[in-house]
Amino acid sequence: MREATRDVGAALARLQRASRVLVTSHAAPDGDALGSELGFAELARALGIAATIVNRDPHPASLAFLPGLETIRVADLPAGFEHDFDLGVLLECPDLDRPGFAGFGSLPLLNLDHHLENALYGEVNVVDEDAPAVGEMVLAMAETAGIAVTASMATNLYAALVTDTGDFRYSNATPRAFTAAARLVTAGAKPDAIAEALWEHNPARVVRLTAEVLATLELLAGGRLAVIACDRAMLARAGARPEDTENLVNIPRAIDGVRVAVFLKALADGAVRVSLRSRGDVDVQSVARTFGGGGHRNAAGCTLKGGLADARRALLAAVLPVVESS
Amino acid sequence: MREATRDVGAALARLQRASRVLVTSHAAPDGDALGSELGFAELARALGIAATIVNRDPHPASLAFLPGLETIRVADLPAGFEHDFDLGVLLECPDLDRPGFAGFGSLPLLNLDHHLENALYGEVNVVDEDAPAVGEMVLAMAETAGIAVTASMATNLYAALVTDTGDFRYSNATPRAFTAAARLVTAGAKPDAIAEALWEHNPARVVRLTAEVLATLELLAGGRLAVIACDRAMLARAGARPEDTENLVNIPRAIDGVRVAVFLKALADGAVRVSLRSRGDVDVQSVARTFGGGGHRNAAGCTLKGGLADARRALLAAVLPVVESS
Repeated sequence: MREATRDVGAALARLQRASRVLVTSHAAPDGDALGSELGFAELARALGIAATIVNRDPHPASLAFLPGLETIRVADLPAGFEHDFDLGVLLECPDLDRPGFAGFGSLPLLNLDHHLENALYGEVNVVDEDAPAVGEMVLAMAETAGIAVTASMATNLYAALVTDTGDFRYSNATPRAFTAAARLVTAGAKPDAIAEALWEHNPARVVRLTAEVLATLELLAGGRLAVIACDRAMLARAGARPEDTENLVNIPRAIDGVRVAVFLKALADGAVRVSLRSRGDVDVQSVARTFGGGGHRNAAGCTLKGGLADARRALLAAVLPVVESS
Repeated sequence: MREATRDVGAALARLQRASRVLVTSHAAPDGDALGSELGFAELARALGIAATIVNRDPHPASLAFLPGLETIRVADLPAGFEHDFDLGVLLECPDLDRPGFAGFGSLPLLNLDHHLENALYGEVNVVDEDAPAVGEMVLAMAETAGIAVTASMATNLYAALVTDTGDFRYSNATPRAFTAAARLVTAGAKPDAIAEALWEHNPARVVRLTAEVLATLELLAGGRLAVIACDRAMLARAGARPEDTENLVNIPRAIDGVRVAVFLKALADGAVRVSLRSRGDVDVQSVARTFGGGGHRNAAGCTLKGGLADARRALLAAVLPVVESS
């Protein structure tokens, strides 16, 4: 039976028995992944422990400001890694597949996470689902160790916290999140500069694409269903990339009275990717499942064959009854 | 010589000598004005003091969720107000003109504010420019008084705090702001529900107008100057109101590489209203002044005669040298 604890002291004790640690997080790293890694590596070094961060995927452009980001190796695990390190540290990874590597061989692992469902794959598993971000757990480790939190560590851990709480807009914006923010700002994190770096460097092509896509807005079911669409010509005119559509569905979702928002995107292969967002107890996961997709109650997705018009028709036939009964 | 203090205990002591208080704030009330008023009135009532909130202007739609908002009178000061009350409380008002009333006659005034420049017009002046919001000062008063902070008071004061710190993105997102947030969430404020109420009830017409206006995006001066425009036909097609354009200029301002963003809006009388936003040390106030306008270094505005094309030409001639020398 594998055991978990919430006590970051257990993570600290295990770390202090190591001398060369490999630090990683999940593939497609986000703010909590990168901020926690950089903060953890700085903590390890302050304790006299060598730390190397290796990620499978590069960082998103919005996180390019994180101090020390240039020290992260973006690569597969180096040959012979089991001999180069004496501890592997996995941050924000509910299971061993999340880092996107083939595996960690015989390397002992320290598992530090805040997901409710965690596979407890480590020699030591510190899992605290009440932690607003793994970055907050790393802060607690530094404080427990009596290590001075530097401005760079504070910046990285604040970035972890502010991104994982959605700018303190999600339900994990708890008193614990706010007291951690207070300590990090006291230690030198600059919320205004970090917010500017995170949210105010949008590529112009995304703004152009936003104009194109929002111009397609349809309100149906008495304003309770909002539909937007993106065809290949819009992407081309905006000079945009397929991933630039990522947050667009949240704009119609935030319209007063809207219960479900649908975003239809024509793919290069002729299929249509559908993103569904809902508010409150309206379940869009069931709609996505009808078409072989999945997700959560309030955020789901699926892929339909055929062009935009056919996909729109099929999708609306499935989603309208859900909206109307809500 | 009028004196100020930062000690909210002085405000509490003056309040406790009153029995019927008139509470107000500035005209065109925002989140800090309304949240502080409602929190203050609840505090006064908990101390056995009758409190009536009177504002000249109604609340913005985004703040309609504030608990107790229906108790606010939106009107001029009632006839005989000097006899009906024994204390006037002005929240977040740097001077006596800000409430938008003719005056307060002989009513003794308590002045609670966080603006650096405050005219110290009260019998008691509690002015603390380090307070992230006046709502935070009201929280400190309640705590000093030993009054239990209810969920409704916490919701109002959290709304004050989150709006005045720009979702904790401004430079007043200090440790003091975050510790206040922690106390308010502990007392029952729900950051996720408040964020949803504040930011996710946009009228559909604003989304339609956003599409129209962003489609006009021009990038000049090598991507350092962004220009968007709104003519009367766009407003008509979107079914939008002139005030719906309020936040649009912030979208081009947040484009990577942009130093100055310009928004040109055709007015009903044929003139053109210009909004200017800049980043860092680029001064747009000087540009606005050239055309008889004003503002601050990073946010300024002016009004030009003639149509959009003429206004655009004149404005660009003035702003391009500023952008190019930045």
